[in-house]
Formats: sequence, C-alpha cells, structure tokens
Amino acid sequence: MLVSFSCVTEVTRELLVKYGVSERSAEILAESVLYAGRCGIATHGVRHLPMYINKIKSGHLNPKDEVELVTDNGAVAVLDANRCLGQVAARQAIDLAVEKAKQYGVAAVGIRNGNTFGAAGYYAYLAAQQGMASVIFANSAPAIAPTGGKKTIFGTNPICFGFPGGEESFPIVLDMATTVVARSKVRMAAKNGDKIPTDWAIGPDGQPTDDPNEALKGSLLPIGGYKGYGLSLFIDLFAGLLTGAAFAGGVKPLSNMESDSNCGQLFIVFDTKRFLDQDELDHKSEIFRSAVKACGDEGAVMLPGEPQFKRMAEQKDAVFIADEEALNINRLAEQSGISARLEQIQ
Amino acid sequence: MLVSFSCVTEVTRELLVKYGVSERSAEILAESVLYAGRCGIATHGVRHLPMYINKIKSGHLNPKDEVELVTDNGAVAVLDANRCLGQVAARQAIDLAVEKAKQYGVAAVGIRNGNTFGAAGYYAYLAAQQGMASVIFANSAPAIAPTGGKKTIFGTNPICFGFPGGEESFPIVLDMATTVVARSKVRMAAKNGDKIPTDWAIGPDGQPTDDPNEALKGSLLPIGGYKGYGLSLFIDLFAGLLTGAAFAGGVKPLSNMESDSNCGQLFIVFDTKRFLDQDELDHKSEIFRSAVKACGDEGAVMLPGEPQFKRMAEQKDAVFIADEEALNINRLAEQSGISARLEQIQ
Repeated sequence: MLVSFSCVTEVTRELLVKYGVSERSAEILAESVLYAGRCGIATHGVRHLPMYINKIKSGHLNPKDEVELVTDNGAVAVLDANRCLGQVAARQAIDLAVEKAKQYGVAAVGIRNGNTFGAAGYYAYLAAQQGMASVIFANSAPAIAPTGGKKTIFGTNPICFGFPGGEESFPIVLDMATTVVARSKVRMAAKNGDKIPTDWAIGPDGQPTDDPNEALKGSLLPIGGYKGYGLSLFIDLFAGLLTGAAFAGGVKPLSNMESDSNCGQLFIVFDTKRFLDQDELDHKSEIFRSAVKACGDEGAVMLPGEPQFKRMAEQKDAVFIADEEALNINRLAEQSGISARLEQIQ
Repeated sequence: MLVSFSCVTEVTRELLVKYGVSERSAEILAESVLYAGRCGIATHGVRHLPMYINKIKSGHLNPKDEVELVTDNGAVAVLDANRCLGQVAARQAIDLAVEKAKQYGVAAVGIRNGNTFGAAGYYAYLAAQQGMASVIFANSAPAIAPTGGKKTIFGTNPICFGFPGGEESFPIVLDMATTVVARSKVRMAAKNGDKIPTDWAIGPDGQPTDDPNEALKGSLLPIGGYKGYGLSLFIDLFAGLLTGAAFAGGVKPLSNMESDSNCGQLFIVFDTKRFLDQDELDHKSEIFRSAVKACGDEGAVMLPGEPQFKRMAEQKDAVFIADEEALNINRLAEQSGISARLEQIQ
C-alpha cells in the first residue's frame, strides 16, 4: 500500500516513544526509514521496526540516546553508542564527521557498542548534500567464511561511497554488501519460499545451494572470491577492531535477543572543496556524468544510486509498504496501545 | 634467474640515471621494484623498466623529480607530480600522508599529473611499518565498460588497504584490481600464447572470450558485476577527478608514447593509535589473526598479503627474474652504454 510520509513518521514515532525512545531519536529513525522506503530499499524500510522494539524489550538495545564521545582528537573521533538505535548514533557520527571535515579537510569518526544503522547510503547522501565525499564501513554478524575456510567470521559488511552531485544533480552513492547479495535477500527468499541462484551462497557442507534455508545455515559468497573476502576483512578491521566495537565474528545480529549487537561503523568524510574549487568541481562532475552515460545506448547506463534517487524523486509524499509488513506493524501498534496506524493514502 | 638485491638496484639505478633521473629517485624506483620482486608480484617488478625509459625518451615522462605541493590545507594535500616517475611522487605522497596523519589522526594526500606507481601494496606496507592503517585509490587507463554500457571508461583501478601487524607480525595488505583480473595478467597470457578463462573479459563484440588478444580489444569484467563497476567508478572520482588528474577515461597507459598518462592517486592514512592505545591494538590484532586462521584447517586460510610477505621473508638477498626479462634489460643496458648487468647470483 502507499502510505504518506507523515503517517509513516507518526507510527514510527509513537511506537518508539512508547518503548522509551526520545521524540528526537524516533524522528531520526523515521527519517532513515523514509529514505529507504522512498529509494525502494525495502530491506531497510519499516520492516525492522518490530525487531527494534523486541530488542529494546530484551534489554539489549538501549532506548535512551546516551551516546558518549569517548575520543575526540584532531580529525578523529569515536562515539560509544551505548547500545542505542544504530541510526541515532550514526546520525551523530556523520554530523560530527562533516563538521570535522570542514575544519581539517578530512575526518574519521567511529562508533562502538552500536546497532545496525539501516541503509549506509543514507549517511553518504546526507554528507553529499553538504558538499562532502565519503567512505563508510560497517561490520555485521558472521555471514561469510574466509577464502579457504569453513567457519563464517565476517559479515556482509557494507562499504559505501558518496560523492556530491552539485546544485542540479542527485549525488552519486554506492552502497554495497561485500557479498554477492545481502543476507536480507536470502532471508526474503526463505520467507517467500523462493529458490536462490547457486552463486549466492554455500550450505553448511561447503557446497553451492539453491535453498535459502541451507544458505542461511552455511555461508554467503563474497564478490570476486578472495577479493571480497579481503574487503570484508578490512571493513571489520576499520569498523570493528579500530573503533573498539566487536570484531572477528563477535558482532551479534539484531535478531539475537540474548546479546548486545556491538556493531561498529566508521565514517570517513572529505571536504571536496579542499581539493578543487566549487566551479571546477561542478564542471568536472558534469563531464564525468556525461562521459559515463555516453558509454552505452540512451538510458542503458546508470550511475550508482541513480535508480534509487529517480524513484525518490517520484515518491514525493508517499512510500510503498508491502501489505503484510503494514499489517505486522499495525498489529504491533494495537498491542502497544498507540493510536497511529499505517493507512493507505486517500 | 636469481639476482641479488644489490645487482637489481645497481642496474635500475645506472639505467635511470643515464636517462636523466636523479640518484635518489632511481633508488626509490629500485626499492619499489625490489618489493614487488620479493613479494612475487612479477607484473610490478623490473619488467616495466624498458617502458619507463621509452616513455622518458618520448618526452611524456619527466625524468626530473619536479613534484610540486599545490594544495596543503590541514589534513589534505595535493601534489602535482609533473609527469615524473609514479613511484617517486607516490613515495613523497605516502610520507606526507603519514606525517599529516601523525598530526591530525587521519590525512588524505592526492597526486595529479602522475604515472603508474607500481604495486599499490608497497605504500600501504610502508605506512603500516609506521603504525598506520591506509586506504589507497589509483586510477588507470580505460579497461572496463560501465554495467549496461559498451565503451570502456574506467581502469582496473586498484584499491588497496593496509593495517599494521605490530612488532612481531607482518602487516595485513590487500592490493586488488577492481576487475576479475588485472590487465597485466591478460597481457601476459597474450604474450605467452595462453588462453584465458571466459569470466575474465569480453571481446569488442561484448561476448565472453578465451582469447587474450580479443579481451585486450574489448573490456575486462569487474568483480561482482555492478558492484565492481561502482568501485571502479568511485576510485576514479577519488583518485582522478578530486585530485585534479585525468578522469572518466582520460588516463593514458604507460605504453602510450604519444601522451602524458596523467594518472591520479589518493592516499588516505589513519594513525591507529588515535583510536586505541598500542597495547590494546596489539592484543586485539593477535585475537583477530588467530580467529581468522581458526576458520579453516591448519594453513588453509591466509590473511591478505600473507603469501607475499611469507615469500618476502624467504627472499632475503635475491629476487627471481624471468630469463627473458633479464635478457631484455641487459640488452637495453648494453645499448645504453652502462656497465651494470642483471646476473645470476653465484
């Protein structure tokens, strides 16, 4: 169903506030969820709301935003998220990284004791709107085995890049899991009873499988063999070990109700105007975009993020939410005794 | 043949000095070539020496090291390499980035008007020896088409990561082309008359090919489909557009004797001690290494760079150079009227 922005925000806000989250933090989460919804990134839309709330109930997600600046040293900072909503700490981190990049030219801000922060591209998008290029690393629960190994240790560990689009154009944003596909796609296939391509994952026996349930028990496959393993490993070093978060298999998934997740993230932000002046940046960006487009037939080549931002531009007031997801959330809203509901736009 | 370090250095130095390169710059190039040779990265060993010299003769590689600091603004700097040997500018850039990272915690140093800089991992290795983590981007001549496109625009564009190994261990270094294989591997297959696997490249007709000559006329394939295209694109944005180097297909290969190459590189360096103190870093690094190793049978799992550094530790005094390569270089040495020759170790 199509749901208005204000309705999504209202339901998200009321639900989270009910479970102890502050108004401001609930709004930050709603903004991130709306971004994902508008871009068509269903896996990071409202779907996870019930899981966030279950994790709050379990005591392993802190509804209070008690984010603490534990290191602030020149162009480097580390935030202890203190187990709060991943989106809330991430918003603080990207804002601080942008501020520091304005001061120093480049900055790196890490998060420890964190939770999954939704779509990484959202933070690259926010930075790009302020003229900043960015590289973002996030570690996640074990999903892949090292090349030559059997036991999963590294996550799908997204790497995300952003580059500003100038006044006229959308930014360029690449937000990719280092696996052939994200775990959520396998989970969705399992849920829908679909088979998966055999190059997505191996089962617990180490053999390729088209059964998503076997894949979830086994290991996802990284892109490009040992290259994807190497990327995933380095994202764990930067986002996990270096920030003081869990690393080397220590991150627990959001769905684990027995433990803190202790994810880590690292936001590296570059003030593009320290490199080139704005006129030159704008001019070269235009040349860049045209040259990429000219590599194929009319409309055949897309810039990273282009399909998402085109969709976003079309969804000006409302986002699409699958009926079953909306039903789930409305059931939760009812049980929680709040009045707001996700409703089809008139 | 096995050639002693001093012999490789001597031949490299004499040859380059003969063509106008300074003693110091020739030594820097020899160090980079020795690193590649010791690590077994044949594609970045002495093989390119004749091409460097041809490019100097063509007037499109400047033998003088007239590297100029064009931007020096907080934690960001840009060097204009003024068409000098890529290794010479890169060495200056990584040294400056390490110095700035010590001051600010993180730093980004770019190069414009550059040339190919050999093995990217060498600079990550140098930074790691000083306790620095790093991310390095380099753009190169067109080799891949965007997903959906036909015309090549982005290079094999290496991305390189480094992390210090502490007192006892070798660093962790991932140095990877964003294509399934580097162009040099296809070139080597063409030279040796070998066929290539069909997932390496497409011919000029857009179809998979096992003929390396067709592949060189067509397009290499990026890792992970659109993900590798996206990585390659962002490396071009960071290393090319942002530094003021050529971008979007403008870089010319070292082998092109009609034009400057105008490569760009970006060195991002992190002082790991700003994040965690040395004891904690060492302790966690040990846990990390053991955990990765424990994912497979004894010896089955390697850390990125491990095969290279193991080989390096074994090659304490001499490197292996293919007979044909040595012959080529000795012929050039003779023509150039220098006395040094590559000679089999006694």
